[in-house]
Amino acid sequence: MAIDIRTQGLKKPVPVAQYLFARLYEIGIRSVHGLPGDFNLVALDYIPKAKLKWVGSVNELNAAYAADGYARALGISALVTTFGVGELSAMNGVAGAYSEHVPVVHIVGCPSTISQRNGMLLHHTLGNGDFNVFANMGSQIACNTARLNNPAEIAEQIDFALRECWIHSRPVYIMLPTDMVEKQIEGARLDTPIDLSDPPNEPEREDYVVDVVLRYLHAAKNPIILVDACAIRHRCLEEVRNLVDKAKLPVFVTPMGKGAVNESSPTYGGVYAGTGSQPAVQELVESADLVLSIGALKSDFNTTGFSYRTSQLNTIDFHSDHCKVRYSEYPGVAMKGVLRKLIERVDTTKLSSEKLAPKVVNEVSENRDSTETITQAWFWPRVGEYFKEKDLVVTETGTSNFGIWESKFPPDVVGITQILWGSIGWSVGAAQGVAQAVKDMGEDRRTILFVGDGSFQLTVQEVSTMIKHKLRVTIFLIYNEGFTIERCIHGMEAEYNDIRRWNYTEIPTVFGATDKEVRKHIIKTKSELEKLLADKDFNDAKGLQLVELWMPKHDAPRALKLTAEQSAKNNARME
Amino acid sequence: MAIDIRTQGLKKPVPVAQYLFARLYEIGIRSVHGLPGDFNLVALDYIPKAKLKWVGSVNELNAAYAADGYARALGISALVTTFGVGELSAMNGVAGAYSEHVPVVHIVGCPSTISQRNGMLLHHTLGNGDFNVFANMGSQIACNTARLNNPAEIAEQIDFALRECWIHSRPVYIMLPTDMVEKQIEGARLDTPIDLSDPPNEPEREDYVVDVVLRYLHAAKNPIILVDACAIRHRCLEEVRNLVDKAKLPVFVTPMGKGAVNESSPTYGGVYAGTGSQPAVQELVESADLVLSIGALKSDFNTTGFSYRTSQLNTIDFHSDHCKVRYSEYPGVAMKGVLRKLIERVDTTKLSSEKLAPKVVNEVSENRDSTETITQAWFWPRVGEYFKEKDLVVTETGTSNFGIWESKFPPDVVGITQILWGSIGWSVGAAQGVAQAVKDMGEDRRTILFVGDGSFQLTVQEVSTMIKHKLRVTIFLIYNEGFTIERCIHGMEAEYNDIRRWNYTEIPTVFGATDKEVRKHIIKTKSELEKLLADKDFNDAKGLQLVELWMPKHDAPRALKLTAEQSAKNNARME
Repeated sequence: MAIDIRTQGLKKPVPVAQYLFARLYEIGIRSVHGLPGDFNLVALDYIPKAKLKWVGSVNELNAAYAADGYARALGISALVTTFGVGELSAMNGVAGAYSEHVPVVHIVGCPSTISQRNGMLLHHTLGNGDFNVFANMGSQIACNTARLNNPAEIAEQIDFALRECWIHSRPVYIMLPTDMVEKQIEGARLDTPIDLSDPPNEPEREDYVVDVVLRYLHAAKNPIILVDACAIRHRCLEEVRNLVDKAKLPVFVTPMGKGAVNESSPTYGGVYAGTGSQPAVQELVESADLVLSIGALKSDFNTTGFSYRTSQLNTIDFHSDHCKVRYSEYPGVAMKGVLRKLIERVDTTKLSSEKLAPKVVNEVSENRDSTETITQAWFWPRVGEYFKEKDLVVTETGTSNFGIWESKFPPDVVGITQILWGSIGWSVGAAQGVAQAVKDMGEDRRTILFVGDGSFQLTVQEVSTMIKHKLRVTIFLIYNEGFTIERCIHGMEAEYNDIRRWNYTEIPTVFGATDKEVRKHIIKTKSELEKLLADKDFNDAKGLQLVELWMPKHDAPRALKLTAEQSAKNNARME
Repeated sequence: MAIDIRTQGLKKPVPVAQYLFARLYEIGIRSVHGLPGDFNLVALDYIPKAKLKWVGSVNELNAAYAADGYARALGISALVTTFGVGELSAMNGVAGAYSEHVPVVHIVGCPSTISQRNGMLLHHTLGNGDFNVFANMGSQIACNTARLNNPAEIAEQIDFALRECWIHSRPVYIMLPTDMVEKQIEGARLDTPIDLSDPPNEPEREDYVVDVVLRYLHAAKNPIILVDACAIRHRCLEEVRNLVDKAKLPVFVTPMGKGAVNESSPTYGGVYAGTGSQPAVQELVESADLVLSIGALKSDFNTTGFSYRTSQLNTIDFHSDHCKVRYSEYPGVAMKGVLRKLIERVDTTKLSSEKLAPKVVNEVSENRDSTETITQAWFWPRVGEYFKEKDLVVTETGTSNFGIWESKFPPDVVGITQILWGSIGWSVGAAQGVAQAVKDMGEDRRTILFVGDGSFQLTVQEVSTMIKHKLRVTIFLIYNEGFTIERCIHGMEAEYNDIRRWNYTEIPTVFGATDKEVRKHIIKTKSELEKLLADKDFNDAKGLQLVELWMPKHDAPRALKLTAEQSAKNNARME
C-alpha cells in the first residue's frame, strides 16, 4: 500500500485553508471581508466550503473598514487581501483597528514559499526580492504575525494567532503562501475549540487590588463611574452594567464609551469629556472625590483636547492589562476579574452619593431656533428621539462624532465610532460591516450611519456592497460642503477644505439599486426632517435609505469647536 | 534694536513650507496632489503662495496614484498627506511608485515635535506614543526619509531628499511636524538650484565598459536592441533614440518598455516578452547572437511568466546603477554615460544585421471575425489606428495591459502602465495625474485610459477630480463583468471574480458633470465603435469622455492567457 507522504501521521488530514476557515467559523465569524487577488484565489474557494459568506467589497480599504465595523458589532472579523497591493491598500483600515482595539484577523495571500526562497521577480513585489517587507510593516499594527511557511507548525500558529486576536482585541496578520493553502494538516485539532477565555488574574493579587479599591470606594463621599472605550473593546459591558445596577452611583461615559451604559438608567448622567461636556456633567465629574475610571483611553478628541480637570489622586483606573489606584500600579491585573469581585463584595450600605447625576434628555425644544435651518445644536437631540432600542449608530469623524454626544440613546443602542484613529471615510465601510454582522446574527435591528459629505466621498463605493447584500442601512449624509472639522481647526474658507457637490441621492442608482432597493430623500428644513422621522416606512428601515441632509457649512457642534481650537493650539505650540 | 532669535544669522529668512514648495516649483512641479488633514493644513496655505496648484483628490490612495501618473508624464511629482490615516491610505500608491521607479515626493504633515517628545495620546496615532512607526513603514518604500525636526538642518535635508528622489527615480518621505512649518530657515539657498545632474561615471571605468561592449557589438552577426522599463524611468530615451537611429539595428520593447521607441522607426520590430510575443518577434530576439538590453526589469508579467529564451552569454545589460557584459559585472557604471559614448564610438561599418525586424502594423482586418462582438484580438489593433502622435496612453493591470502589446503607437506616444506592481484601480488615479501634467506643461495632447470595470470601481471617485479640473481624459471602460485577469489565473466562474453592474456612463453626472462637461457612449458592437472612432469631436477629445465598451466576459488577450497560466502554475508549484 502506498503511503501518502502529505498526510502521513495525520489522524484527520485537512487542507490548511479548510482548517483556517473552520476556525473562523468556530469563533463566530460568518462573513469574510476582502478582495480577490491572484495570491489568494485558491484559498477563497474554501470560504463557502466552511459555510462562510464572501462579502467582496469594492476596494481593500473599504473592506478593512467593513471588517472593523463587523468586529465591533459581532465581536471579531476576518479580512482577506492579496500580497503587497491588497494588504497595503487595507493598511490604514487595519491600523485603525489596532489603534482602537478591534480584533480583525487579516489573512494575506502571498507568493509560494518556493518563489520567496528563490527571490523571484514577481508582480506585486518591490522588485528587490524581499518578501518580508510587507509582513514587517503589517507586524507594526498586529498583536501577532503568523507566517505559515511550515505545515508542521501551521495549525498551532493559526490557533495561537486567533487566540491572541481575541484576547488582546487587536488585529493579527496571517501570511498564507499559495503553496501552503492546500497542504494537509491535522484536522483532529478542530475537535477541540480554541480557548478564548481571558487569562485569569493571580487570585491573591486580584484580591489585594479589590480590597484597596473597596477601601477607597467605601470611604468616598461622592464617587462616580466613568466608562470609556476599552470597557467596550475588552468586553466588560456586563461587568459595567452589574456594577452600575448594584452601586447606583452616578455614571458617565466618554465619547468613545458612548453606548456602554444604559442611558435610561436612573444614575446615568451623560457624556464627560472635560470642557466639552455639558456644564452640569463637568461640574459633577470634576468635583467627585473618587472616579472609578473603566477602560480609559484619554486621547485628545476623547477629552476635548486633554481638558480633564480630574486628579489622579481621586482616580482608580481599570484597564484590560493593569489597574491603578491613585498612583499605585498593578500590572497584569486585568479589570474584568477585579470588577466582578468588586460587584460581589461592595457593601452598598457604605456607599454614599451626595450628588445626583444630571438628568439626561434629548434637548430638542431648548435647541430649536426660529428658522427652518437644520442646525447641529438642534439636529442631534432630535435624532436622539428617532433612535430606538438596539439600533446600531455609526458616526463618522467630523461633526457627527461630536454631535452624537447630545443624542440620548435608548437602551441597548450600540454606538460605533472611531475617535482615536479618526480616519475620514471609515464609517461608510464600517456601516456595511455592522449591517452585515446584524444580518449574520439574524437580528432585527437598524444600522444608522451619520457621515459628512467630505468623508462620504472617500469611500462611496462601499454603498455598492450594501446594495449587493441587501443590507439595512439608513445613511444620514450631512451635506455641508466640505471638511467642516478641518475648517474648525484651520482654513475656514480655504479651498483645500472644499469638496465637489455630488448628486448624492443618485449614487445608489448608478451602483445599480432599483427604486425598490433604495429610498432617497433630500431634506433641507426642520419640517421636512420632522415629516421624514415620523414616517413609518422610514422608521422601519427595511432596506437601504439615503438622506441628504442640508446643514450650514460653518456650523459645528459646540464640542467640536472646542476640540478643534485645542488641536490648532497644540499644532502651533512652539515650546 | 531687538534681535529676532528666529531669524538670527539668516540672510533671507523664509518659512520651511515656503522653502519646500519653492524647491518643488523649481524642479518642475506645478500641481501638488493630496488631501487636507489637520496636521498639514497650515502647510497647505503655502502651496498657492509658491505658484503651485492644489489638486485635492477624493482620497489618499487615488491621490498617490495620481502623483505617480503625474510624475511619469512630467518627470516628478509631490503628494501631501496627513499623519497616520492619510499616509497609510496612500501607502499602496507610493509602494507602486517605489517598485516601478517613479519619483514622488511624499510630504507627511505630522504632529509637532513637542507632541512627539511628550508622547501625547493624539488622534491619528496608535495610542502607544510611537510617532515614528509610520515613518519607519514609509522608509521601506522610499529612497530617502527626512524627518524635519531641527530648523538648522531642514534646508539641507529637503535639498538632499529632492536630489535623491530625482537621481534614484523613487519616492522620498518627508515628515513635516506642525511646529516646523513656519520656522524660519535660510532662503538664500534658493538662489542656487538643486543639483539634479546624474553623478558621472568614473571615466576610465566607463571607457573600459564601452570598449568591451563595442568589441562584442562589432563582432556580432545579428545583434538586436531590447528596451525596457528603466530606460524610461531613468531618463535614457534620448540615448536610446540616438543609438537606434545611428546603429539601425532591430529594436524591440518589453511590455514595460512600450512607448520608449518610435514605433514608426524602420528597424522597430515590436514587443518582446518571451512566449507571449508574436512568433516572428520571439524568433528574431531569441536567435540574436547579441542582445543589448537597456533598463531590463524582468518581472513575471513583463516576460510572460519568465519565458525568455535568451542567454546571458549573448546579453549586455545596461542599468541605471551598473552594467553587465555576459557575466562580467560593472557596479557603479551607469548606463547613460556608457550609452552616450557607445553612440559616439560605434563604428556603423562594422555592424551587421543579418535579419530584418518584423514589420509592425496594426493587424485589424487579420483579427476581425464575422461577428459584431468586440473581441480583445480585434480591439487592440483597432485602437492602435485611433491613436495619434503624442497621445498619452494609460493602461490598467488586466486585459488592457496585455492587449496594448498589439496596438502600434504613432511617434511620441507615451505608454503608461504599472506592470510590475500591478495594483488594480491604479490607472484611474494615474490618468488624472497624467492629464493634469499635460495641462501643466501647456501641451495639446490627449490622455487615453483603458480600464476594466472591476478595476474602475476601486478608484471611481477620481473621475470627480478630473471633472473638477476640466481635464482632457478619454476613458475606455471595458465592461466585461469582473476581474478577467483573475478569472484567467483561477476561478473562471467563481463568484469572487464577479462584480456588480454599475451604470457607468452616469457616474460623471452624479459627480456633478454637466452634459457639456462630459461625453458618454455605450458601445456594444464593432460598427458602433467604428463610428465613434471616426467622429471628429470624439477624436478631438476636448474634455472628459467615457466610453462603456462591451467585451465578452471570458475573452482575454493571448498574452494574458499565457501569463495567467504561468502564474497559476507558479502559485501551485510544490517543489
